[in-house]
Amino acid sequence: MALMEISVVPIGTPTPSIGDYIAEVVKTLEQEGAKFKLTDMGTIIEGDVEEILALARKLHETPFKKGIQRVITTIEIDDRRDKKVSIEDKVKSVMARLK
Amino acid sequence: MALMEISVVPIGTPTPSIGDYIAEVVKTLEQEGAKFKLTDMGTIIEGDVEEILALARKLHETPFKKGIQRVITTIEIDDRRDKKVSIEDKVKSVMARLK
Amino acid sequence: MALMEISVVPIGTPTPSIGDYIAEVVKTLEQEGAKFKLTDMGTIIEGDVEEILALARKLHETPFKKGIQRVITTIEIDDRRDKKVSIEDKVKSVMARLK
Amino acid sequence: MALMEISVVPIGTPTPSIGDYIAEVVKTLEQEGAKFKLTDMGTIIEGDVEEILALARKLHETPFKKGIQRVITTIEIDDRRDKKVSIEDKVKSVMARLK
Repeated sequence: MALMEISVVPIGTPTPSIGDYIAEVVKTLEQEGAKFKLTDMGTIIEGDVEEILALARKLHETPFKKGIQRVITTIEIDDRRDKKVSIEDKVKSVMARLK
Repeated sequence: MALMEISVVPIGTPTPSIGDYIAEVVKTLEQEGAKFKLTDMGTIIEGDVEEILALARKLHETPFKKGIQRVITTIEIDDRRDKKVSIEDKVKSVMARLK
Repeated sequence: MALMEISVVPIGTPTPSIGDYIAEVVKTLEQEGAKFKLTDMGTIIEGDVEEILALARKLHETPFKKGIQRVITTIEIDDRRDKKVSIEDKVKSVMARLK
Repeated sequence: MALMEISVVPIGTPTPSIGDYIAEVVKTLEQEGAKFKLTDMGTIIEGDVEEILALARKLHETPFKKGIQRVITTIEIDDRRDKKVSIEDKVKSVMARLK
């Protein structure tokens, strides 16, 4: 099980606001039934590598569907094979160390 | 005002677990009185660019203090000059669009 | 046509040196017949989004095959639909502006 | 000695082309006398962490000087304390393993 953080950035938008495009990313994840968490800097998705890369492919496409001609997508995958990792596990594990 | 996401990754650790090093990052941010939020994939910090890059410098150093010889630090800065942005603002703004 | 930069980082290696794992990434790209360029900070690959994400999937797997239990892979995709972009095009385009 | 890769992306540009902004980044590095290498996906800079973060600060500011209101800057620092690393060293070291 892996976690992925993805950030889909449309280039050449009329204003500096890109919230509408991020909303499309979230809508797509809801339609796909993905397990995810929106943060201020991206979206964290949980799943098998195969599955989350297929989602990345779909999310990367969303701004093009709205007429954008260039998209820069940043993806980080944290994949452990020695234990199962779910959303919020890593935060909890670090917080427990601080007590 | 800008938001920064930072991820400090020690290379050459005895095990795949790096939670102790992330706990050091969080402790340092608490000592510095920074405004931050830990996520599963990094730490989001709010502040002036000057201030958050000075914090990045300190956080990057933490694994070396624990004997690590190589650190890969990833930083993303989202800086708007047309409006003030704080932690949770972007999440709220996107969620409002989905209603 | 898109460009992707990928960096595959094994976590929990015996030493801070990870060159052997990067060599595996390069070998895999050569076997796949990919169009790529190794830099000091990652590998830049040219292709359709579909194709480069399939390569990312394969490259992400290479450290696990050598016994590593955790891998952090960072991917950046720059995808333009208004013009064809190949490796070295962007460098040349920026350098031409500096003359 | 560390290597940094930096990518400075202006948001809300009139067209999808951002080469003019990247040219400003390169001009600034030349004026600063930095040791750097432009790639298709960013700029790789060599130096002490202190020094390269100061450069990152200056480079991040360049699009704002041209009227841009939002900039997303991505930075990756690879810092080794067990050996000196310069631009091209890592590429050479991996290529030597492939012979």
